Amino acid sequence: MRILLELSYLGSNYAGFQVQPNKPTVQSKLQDALEAVYGERLPVRGCSRTDAGVHAKQYFATYDTTQHIPPDRIPLALNSHLPCDIAVRSSELVPESFHVRHDVLWKEYRYTLYNSQIRDPFIEGRACRLNRVFSSSELERMRDAARLIVGRKDFRAFMSEGSSITDTVRSVLRLDISVDRDLIYIDVAADGFLYNMVRIIAGTLIDVARGRFAPDDVADIIASRDRRRAGFTAPPEGLCLERVCLDISKICEGQSASRDDTRRSN
Amino acid sequence: MRILLELSYLGSNYAGFQVQPNKPTVQSKLQDALEAVYGERLPVRGCSRTDAGVHAKQYFATYDTTQHIPPDRIPLALNSHLPCDIAVRSSELVPESFHVRHDVLWKEYRYTLYNSQIRDPFIEGRACRLNRVFSSSELERMRDAARLIVGRKDFRAFMSEGSSITDTVRSVLRLDISVDRDLIYIDVAADGFLYNMVRIIAGTLIDVARGRFAPDDVADIIASRDRRRAGFTAPPEGLCLERVCLDISKICEGQSASRDDTRRSN
Repeated sequence: MRILLELSYLGSNYAGFQVQPNKPTVQSKLQDALEAVYGERLPVRGCSRTDAGVHAKQYFATYDTTQHIPPDRIPLALNSHLPCDIAVRSSELVPESFHVRHDVLWKEYRYTLYNSQIRDPFIEGRACRLNRVFSSSELERMRDAARLIVGRKDFRAFMSEGSSITDTVRSVLRLDISVDRDLIYIDVAADGFLYNMVRIIAGTLIDVARGRFAPDDVADIIASRDRRRAGFTAPPEGLCLERVCLDISKICEGQSASRDDTRRSN
Repeated sequence: MRILLELSYLGSNYAGFQVQPNKPTVQSKLQDALEAVYGERLPVRGCSRTDAGVHAKQYFATYDTTQHIPPDRIPLALNSHLPCDIAVRSSELVPESFHVRHDVLWKEYRYTLYNSQIRDPFIEGRACRLNRVFSSSELERMRDAARLIVGRKDFRAFMSEGSSITDTVRSVLRLDISVDRDLIYIDVAADGFLYNMVRIIAGTLIDVARGRFAPDDVADIIASRDRRRAGFTAPPEGLCLERVCLDISKICEGQSASRDDTRRSN
């Protein structure tokens, strides 16, 4: 049977989600915890590769097992074997046809800028501090540029090198900039993201605010499909995967299937 | 001259504010940073002793020096020598008659309860999790009990042993309980606090919510002046010093004095 886990983690201490040799990753911690609970190594599949230092308020992962532990008991069982910066928030049985990466409809990331020159221990490591305070007119420039990013476009200019992806067309569904006291939030939802895409969008918007680009330049940058034309890659500590919208119809299929299984086994 | 520093720190890695032999404390880190900036050991006086693991969003401290560094440059200079969980937020020149502990009018602490059975990495170490979810009727019991704590009273029953204080009368100015999603906030403002007072108030209110005490019992507990009658001492990670209200008149005295000094020195 296939189990879907909803996770939450602070990425500061990890080299991203995906297993890497000799580096601490969220996936390796999760597989260690599964081994402690199930007594065997169960490979985990994640909904997204997140970079080193990037956080996730909501993240989904699946694993397959033949052992039956009631899904509502799995979070507490796994959490007792996970470090305090990783938590399993919920779990459920899903059909084996469900694929945690392919069956994602959209994801939303938040990039947080700390808009103060003075350090704040309570947000340290959870936001990007630029040693520069943005004015409301500079934020308006960011908003003007952000409007040009929304839509279905080829975002190759916002992809770091090192990716083997060839189809670089994605739909950015929403790109909002909001302010809460000392924090500036850049919220980006899309049907998919290229390698480092949100961090390059954040860096480009910061460069617009700082005057390196005019807001209208962003349309030309996208059209160029040239990474070198876009802004810098903003640092990972400001980035957090906030929401992952799964295709519920693929999960419900499974639930009716498992109800059928129950009936059959009775 | 006397310099007043406004600080903010996460207490998780420290044995409280005050210097203790062979233990990391906020005061010792601050004195190390001052030594790096001024080239000499400058003793620091804090506005409050905070316990091991307790946080402070706002904390004030003073030190005396004969060396002139412009107050607006002090935060950046000190922050470059402080660990990332301690920050100097601002600094100013105050008269030498100003006393950072005696010239506090009131302080406000927030005790945060995490009202969920599932761990949240983003608030881990910054709230107390009881593995129990409080209902709205249990919260109403807490609020009923809280009303009996507000006022000028002898709070000896809410003081841990180990304090040499004999006058245990304090004025609790405000005690509010509010809810924000998974978090319950207990906000307590008073003209002064006894040793562990907020943590014992929080523990007593939790015991009221859990049904160990009736809300009305709290009046008897206070009247008993007996620590053993009150609830448990809630753990330190939930506690944060939020605001410290200084007697501004004592600082303004100093500012006019220093303006006079300037005039004299011209």
